[in-house]
Amino acid sequence: MPAFSTLAEFADLLRAAPAADAAAHQAAAARNGQLTKPPGALGRLEDLALWVASWQGTGRPTIKAPQVLIFAGNHGVCAQGVSAFPPEVTVQMVANFQGGGAAINQLSKTFGATMAVHALDLDRPTADFTQGPAMTEAETISALITGWNAVDATADLLVVGEMGIGNTTVAAAIAAALLGGTGAEWVGRGTGVDNAGLARKARTVDAGLARHRARDPLQVLACLGGREIAAMAGAMARARVLRIPLILDGFIACSAALVLHALVPAALDHAVAGHLSAEGAHGRLLAALGKEPLLSLGLRLGEGSGAALAIGVVQAAVACHSGMATFAEAGVSDG
Amino acid sequence: MPAFSTLAEFADLLRAAPAADAAAHQAAAARNGQLTKPPGALGRLEDLALWVASWQGTGRPTIKAPQVLIFAGNHGVCAQGVSAFPPEVTVQMVANFQGGGAAINQLSKTFGATMAVHALDLDRPTADFTQGPAMTEAETISALITGWNAVDATADLLVVGEMGIGNTTVAAAIAAALLGGTGAEWVGRGTGVDNAGLARKARTVDAGLARHRARDPLQVLACLGGREIAAMAGAMARARVLRIPLILDGFIACSAALVLHALVPAALDHAVAGHLSAEGAHGRLLAALGKEPLLSLGLRLGEGSGAALAIGVVQAAVACHSGMATFAEAGVSDG
Repeated sequence: MPAFSTLAEFADLLRAAPAADAAAHQAAAARNGQLTKPPGALGRLEDLALWVASWQGTGRPTIKAPQVLIFAGNHGVCAQGVSAFPPEVTVQMVANFQGGGAAINQLSKTFGATMAVHALDLDRPTADFTQGPAMTEAETISALITGWNAVDATADLLVVGEMGIGNTTVAAAIAAALLGGTGAEWVGRGTGVDNAGLARKARTVDAGLARHRARDPLQVLACLGGREIAAMAGAMARARVLRIPLILDGFIACSAALVLHALVPAALDHAVAGHLSAEGAHGRLLAALGKEPLLSLGLRLGEGSGAALAIGVVQAAVACHSGMATFAEAGVSDG
Repeated sequence: MPAFSTLAEFADLLRAAPAADAAAHQAAAARNGQLTKPPGALGRLEDLALWVASWQGTGRPTIKAPQVLIFAGNHGVCAQGVSAFPPEVTVQMVANFQGGGAAINQLSKTFGATMAVHALDLDRPTADFTQGPAMTEAETISALITGWNAVDATADLLVVGEMGIGNTTVAAAIAAALLGGTGAEWVGRGTGVDNAGLARKARTVDAGLARHRARDPLQVLACLGGREIAAMAGAMARARVLRIPLILDGFIACSAALVLHALVPAALDHAVAGHLSAEGAHGRLLAALGKEPLLSLGLRLGEGSGAALAIGVVQAAVACHSGMATFAEAGVSDG
């Protein structure tokens, strides 16, 4: 029996999710103040350690089981000529993920994360949102459940990524519907479209916005979204309920996060932004989510790659916090 | 028998160091263009992989043996009241490094790096540079040799860090002597001095600049530097000669790098900037070195910590480059 069977039940679960552990945060802050370094000298690593502590519920956290989840979907809106790559690349890349040959495989291995890919009905693309709703309510719920169930309850850090030719257009449409603005303000070059492709993306988003007037976040997800976007939202929500710290990836992953954030303001309290993508509007999306990116290295690949890269930073932060000696333990004068 | 016994011989070794391997760079660039991702989608990770390839001399590089070297020294200039911590903290922190309790121990372990700490005559601080030259020429050469010999010739990536109460003042003096400007333009809060301490640091640097007019880089190192700074310069130079890729740390490590750069413009061709420190003038120092930092997370600890954090980024870059499948291998359409 699934955890929820309607969109309203999904929203209720998210609203009922527990907050961070304030006592663990306090214990971690006290420990941080005693470690052998000048106060604040580890900068954002100190904030990260306290953040992990508060969500793991311990003053001395560890990262032993990071999980990377990739969701793949296909999009009817590709008929509008919005990508530099043909739609069959989605299924080819899923095979590449399964064979270990993609960037996200190498990144997961580098940081000791388990990785799983979930392909969502790739042979049955969503409807072209310029013609009608991308997904039915039942399809949206099904994809949310796929994401929800994909999260390993024993994971201690989560990265959620995606693959889906055409999905920067989908993400732009979701962002525009929930935050305002035209297609041109939210589309970018994605995998590398030319100027004509960029103009087509903007027109396509505008057509979607004109056709679908609903601004309820889960209705926006259904009308303009995609299966992998809904699955990402489901996984992020499950992590929130399970209090697993989450690292957000780029523009597309953040469009899924935005749906949750618009639905329940505290939905992303368990999340940090892994990186700032080179996709133009990602910075504005992060600002809307109230997140400051950890990294800014010009990545624009998706696959959870920017967030996976940030696993190393979080691991380092936690290792310093939980492994360093205190001034008293080391016999160091504390200034 | 040491590799050099005069400052002139050291400079000659640095000038004679081999360039990067252009053929390996070309082979890596060709491979990069065939990997299963849109062109450029891994951003700076692609540049990093090509950089490692060109210095390791192979189109398909690996990072199997990163080395972290920490040098510690004490400074007569502490008599001017330039630090928030007493000088005995240097020896206490060396014991902490040896006992595994410092931040750099945890960071080295997180990224699988070996770590060694070299304490340079901690019971014999350099002379107060406001009164005379910090080091004799013989002391400078000896410290350079310590650094030179500390590099493991089998390392495939190097981080050089430091510990030395008072050494942000020393680094500021070196930067001002080689790049111009007053003490106030180069000093910062270091481990956390108050406004009065900051003013003392600026006056101390100005007094050093007034006393020592030499602008020859190795003379500046001797007159205004310190043993750990000279040792860092020696290690960085050795890595250049051995073609081991180097990650630069913060303000103090970069002052050692600046000495080499002022001596031989190509001296840091093997180096990337690991991070931008919160120490105020670090950004200007990096700009003078022509380096763009990989990370900017507000660290200001020294110990090589920011550079060690960047080991993970370099490992990730190399893992993607050398581990990913090509379009042909994966059967993916390349747009």
